[in-house]
Amino acid sequence: MSTRDISLSILSVGSELLDGRIQDRNAQFLAREAQETGFQIAHIMSCDDKLEDIQQCLGFLSQHSRFIVVSGGLGPTEDDLTRDALAAFGGTELGLREDALKRLEEKYQRRKRVMHEANRKQALFPISASLIENPIGTAEGFYLEKEETFLAALPGVPREFQSMLLESVFPYFASKSSGLSPKRKSTLRLFGLPESEVGALVSACPGTKSLEVSYRASFPEIRVQLTGPDTDTVQKTVLEVEKAIGPEFVYSKEASLGLPETVHELCLKKGIKLALAESCTGGLVSEMLSSFPGASAYFQGSVVSYSNAVKEAALGVDHSTLQEKGAVSFEVAEQMAQGALEKLKADIALSITGIAGPDGGSEEKPVGTFYIGCATEGGRFSRKFFHQNERKAVQRFAAFSALDILRRKLLQLPIPGDSATK
Amino acid sequence: MSTRDISLSILSVGSELLDGRIQDRNAQFLAREAQETGFQIAHIMSCDDKLEDIQQCLGFLSQHSRFIVVSGGLGPTEDDLTRDALAAFGGTELGLREDALKRLEEKYQRRKRVMHEANRKQALFPISASLIENPIGTAEGFYLEKEETFLAALPGVPREFQSMLLESVFPYFASKSSGLSPKRKSTLRLFGLPESEVGALVSACPGTKSLEVSYRASFPEIRVQLTGPDTDTVQKTVLEVEKAIGPEFVYSKEASLGLPETVHELCLKKGIKLALAESCTGGLVSEMLSSFPGASAYFQGSVVSYSNAVKEAALGVDHSTLQEKGAVSFEVAEQMAQGALEKLKADIALSITGIAGPDGGSEEKPVGTFYIGCATEGGRFSRKFFHQNERKAVQRFAAFSALDILRRKLLQLPIPGDSATK
Repeated sequence: MSTRDISLSILSVGSELLDGRIQDRNAQFLAREAQETGFQIAHIMSCDDKLEDIQQCLGFLSQHSRFIVVSGGLGPTEDDLTRDALAAFGGTELGLREDALKRLEEKYQRRKRVMHEANRKQALFPISASLIENPIGTAEGFYLEKEETFLAALPGVPREFQSMLLESVFPYFASKSSGLSPKRKSTLRLFGLPESEVGALVSACPGTKSLEVSYRASFPEIRVQLTGPDTDTVQKTVLEVEKAIGPEFVYSKEASLGLPETVHELCLKKGIKLALAESCTGGLVSEMLSSFPGASAYFQGSVVSYSNAVKEAALGVDHSTLQEKGAVSFEVAEQMAQGALEKLKADIALSITGIAGPDGGSEEKPVGTFYIGCATEGGRFSRKFFHQNERKAVQRFAAFSALDILRRKLLQLPIPGDSATK
Repeated sequence: MSTRDISLSILSVGSELLDGRIQDRNAQFLAREAQETGFQIAHIMSCDDKLEDIQQCLGFLSQHSRFIVVSGGLGPTEDDLTRDALAAFGGTELGLREDALKRLEEKYQRRKRVMHEANRKQALFPISASLIENPIGTAEGFYLEKEETFLAALPGVPREFQSMLLESVFPYFASKSSGLSPKRKSTLRLFGLPESEVGALVSACPGTKSLEVSYRASFPEIRVQLTGPDTDTVQKTVLEVEKAIGPEFVYSKEASLGLPETVHELCLKKGIKLALAESCTGGLVSEMLSSFPGASAYFQGSVVSYSNAVKEAALGVDHSTLQEKGAVSFEVAEQMAQGALEKLKADIALSITGIAGPDGGSEEKPVGTFYIGCATEGGRFSRKFFHQNERKAVQRFAAFSALDILRRKLLQLPIPGDSATK
């Protein structure tokens, strides 16, 4: 087996890619999703919607890849030339496909839209092609074979491209390749440890020696992805890694489930009433939670107390405490949480006060210092954190720290951060 | 002059592009920025960091493009092979450049980092290359010429790539091309009109006939970009277009200045004290404004009053008004703004209350209905809006509507939206 047998490339067609109007999201989607299939991506390429150009690119790509996906250029307008270029490349011609025309007419009828003569073009396909139905839009795709090269043409609209790629193209290409060894992957999502420390802990797990380990940071969360030949090996190692990192840091084992949504679902499940008091995060935690449908079931509201006057008037923080300890302190964090609990009629309240920068830092409390307070009927506490970074990153890190403390409090896990008595 | 003379391509090198770990932002940046220079982008390509692969791609690209930018693969590790591949492609060898080595050593000293033997690799360059200094990181770039092809190799780190591309590569390549006709562009940023209406108004301006007009939507803002051969023509047409659209809709003529930052700067300039009362936007407006350094100079704070209990307790909204008119009404919007004005000790207060969905709509007030209230010492008013969309988009549209009303109020421009008496 040569590399070419498992090699896959993508050609995205369209002038809007070449003048920077849009980013080629289809290529990245294909590259990421191909990981599990066992295909190796050889080239990612974009070119203009010109007949000769598309053919030249296919000529180059097919030297290295047995499998090629072409994205875009299947619409009804004059500059949609992908079907023409692929027919020419495959040494065949375009012909009207009655079955496709019928489906096209039905789609227009269902949407109560007039079908123009130009739209009939979308029922033209290379004569030897087999069609790929489009469950969403009007542009159908097709497969074409040329000697030892397999081509799939898909519409460029990301939702259509993605669905047809996963449902049809990957399985079909896999059936045409003999050398594939599909892979299984699993993800751990965590927060609260530096990436270097996570790396060291993961590397020390014997099970990871036989697996591919990759890290995807989407600040300030860390995703550890384990890829291996079979589900059992991967799952066993996931448990090993989780134990090594500390299970309280791993908030999700679903690739797409981030910390805000995890906390949102936990609040719904626990049936609590939540209130917030945000200073340096300026409403970010509120905004994160209220972006999820159904947040009103637990989220009472928040006081964004940017000024000290608001901390006193809206949250009842003591004037003297603000004077003596400063707005960024253990004491004010606790009083803010207590104020939110009472004024916003909640069962649990979180507060955040800190110095996001770039100004306002001091030697004792540099930019990046923040405190999280938490209050319930049963009592209150606060913790100190420090994260040196630019303003927006400090705000984001502080927001995640607050969400993580809420998660840990609700799950009765150890609470991180420095305490006043330390 | 053939097309090849003004044709530019980019090759991005790195396995992290081919397995979908990262998106190729450098290619899109180059494509967008190249618009003004007059270069035409022929191909955008990514390949693995393998010697032979890079050479084959360069072979293909150089058939069509006189100018090629290679991104990435200039680091000190073993899989950084761009310098080797370009030397081989150019028919030359690598040699140590003493001037580059000296700069490298100085950079390590300044950062108080130990320079390992492996890092000396970053002072190796093709013998005939001329160097491109890196003002930010350690990896310098270089130019190489092969017959009628000009190559530039740049580090893949976006900040370094972008700076070196704009400062050095575009001017140098332009000096080597005879057929370029550089273009001038200007941007209008606006909010509050549907894109189709903006399109019709712009098309009706005679001045736009001789210019390229493009629209870049970054929801819910619209950017109209005019590109033409000289500054005078473009500037004259910008004024014509602004008049046709209505100057009160155009909040910025700087390509990078969005509505939130425009409002932030306006608040600073006017020396006001601002308070917010957010319901359906859940803290989004607060978060937008407080993400800018210095927002504490005007931003007092916000009450995110998600529940009716908080609207009453923290903002003093009448229980009876909530009962009779509902939380989403002209009256409650005004009372929320008034409450925020008083409780948060501000000169001007904005409120937002609405139904972001997907649930909670009624026939009279469907999902997407929202009210903006505004209160100052001089009086108060509220306006009704409707924007049908999914939850996050409704929240974002409502947040922008509130920012736009604040902008118009501070600039004494007409206030949009339906009023109670309409």
